[in-house]
Amino acid sequence: MGWLRSAFQDELDGVTSTLVELSSIVSGAIDKATHALLTASLAEAEEVIAADDRVDNLQHDLDARIIDIIARQQPVASDLRALVTALRMSADLERMGDMAHHVAKITRLRHPNAAVPSELLLTIEEMGKVAKLIADKAGSVINSRDIDKALELERDDDEMDKLHRKLFTTLLDDNWAHGTETAIDITLIGRYYERFADHAVSVARRVYFLVTGKFSNQ
Amino acid sequence: MGWLRSAFQDELDGVTSTLVELSSIVSGAIDKATHALLTASLAEAEEVIAADDRVDNLQHDLDARIIDIIARQQPVASDLRALVTALRMSADLERMGDMAHHVAKITRLRHPNAAVPSELLLTIEEMGKVAKLIADKAGSVINSRDIDKALELERDDDEMDKLHRKLFTTLLDDNWAHGTETAIDITLIGRYYERFADHAVSVARRVYFLVTGKFSNQ
Repeated sequence: MGWLRSAFQDELDGVTSTLVELSSIVSGAIDKATHALLTASLAEAEEVIAADDRVDNLQHDLDARIIDIIARQQPVASDLRALVTALRMSADLERMGDMAHHVAKITRLRHPNAAVPSELLLTIEEMGKVAKLIADKAGSVINSRDIDKALELERDDDEMDKLHRKLFTTLLDDNWAHGTETAIDITLIGRYYERFADHAVSVARRVYFLVTGKFSNQ
Repeated sequence: MGWLRSAFQDELDGVTSTLVELSSIVSGAIDKATHALLTASLAEAEEVIAADDRVDNLQHDLDARIIDIIARQQPVASDLRALVTALRMSADLERMGDMAHHVAKITRLRHPNAAVPSELLLTIEEMGKVAKLIADKAGSVINSRDIDKALELERDDDEMDKLHRKLFTTLLDDNWAHGTETAIDITLIGRYYERFADHAVSVARRVYFLVTGKFSNQ
């Protein structure tokens, strides 16, 4: 039984490391997508778009592996909950990859023009920084199950919401001179960063719940 | 063993009927949210917002029930895949409820003004109709596992995408006279209907894959 338990534990550890790897990839993706957006770099945008397949494939393989573990090991109680939670975290991380992909597609669509007017560059740069930070922290929380760190993501998300509101304040200012097309782009870009952060927070909340049995957002 | 099998089958059927019930609730929610949006009805918008808790609670209870079934019955192969798929469909349906909720919140935010200018009423009304239809079909596909019907949702989603593009054409027309705030609202509203339909299509694709072992979108 000791040996079996240990083989099972190895499988769970393997799931965890793939989730951490996914976090690291989507963190890199949003970072590159932000840089491409701010510098109107088509080459970088194309890299982000092409790399999204890798996230999708990794997630797909991971989900198949998790279901296979459940079928073979027939875990109960906390092990089963951990595996079901891993399925949900992989869906969150895959969706974060989609958001980076969406940002890159707007960059490509507007190239060679910049999608972001100069007075919004700093706000978007900040949103990109918070997005990368929050994805990195999500990976760290998956790895460490550190519940204090999990709570930090709620605060980082408040920062993202503040930046998101700042975008709208600029869009709605009487001095806004960039027309409707840019307003649409910025609205969607803002939504993508906000959703990216929401999914990272969701990952942290799932870990928090797994460890404590309580919800972190109440 | 016959008796056990039948008790398990009853539990699977119970999961299916809760998923169908969730589809019906989110179909009603997007229908009412659309009507509230088109008529600037605060009372209806508030109803949709309040009712979203019911979807969240139903989904939460359903997920706990599914995990409990996996733990007790230790299903393998197709039964396990069906239960994992049910978890994913419940997440899709919960998200559809969120989208109806988001539409209702824009109605409430702009009340007593209408969020939608008159030249876009017909397009949004159509989007609402397609959204309701596609949610109803998703429920029907969950119930019947009819793969021909599952494929119909892909075509309905094409219709939604067409309507979504039409929204942007109107927003970007030189005659657009409603300012940036309304452009932002319409951009977000369009995104919410599109995502609502995407999640319904995702439900249909999951059923298609469960029945055929193949992907419907390739």
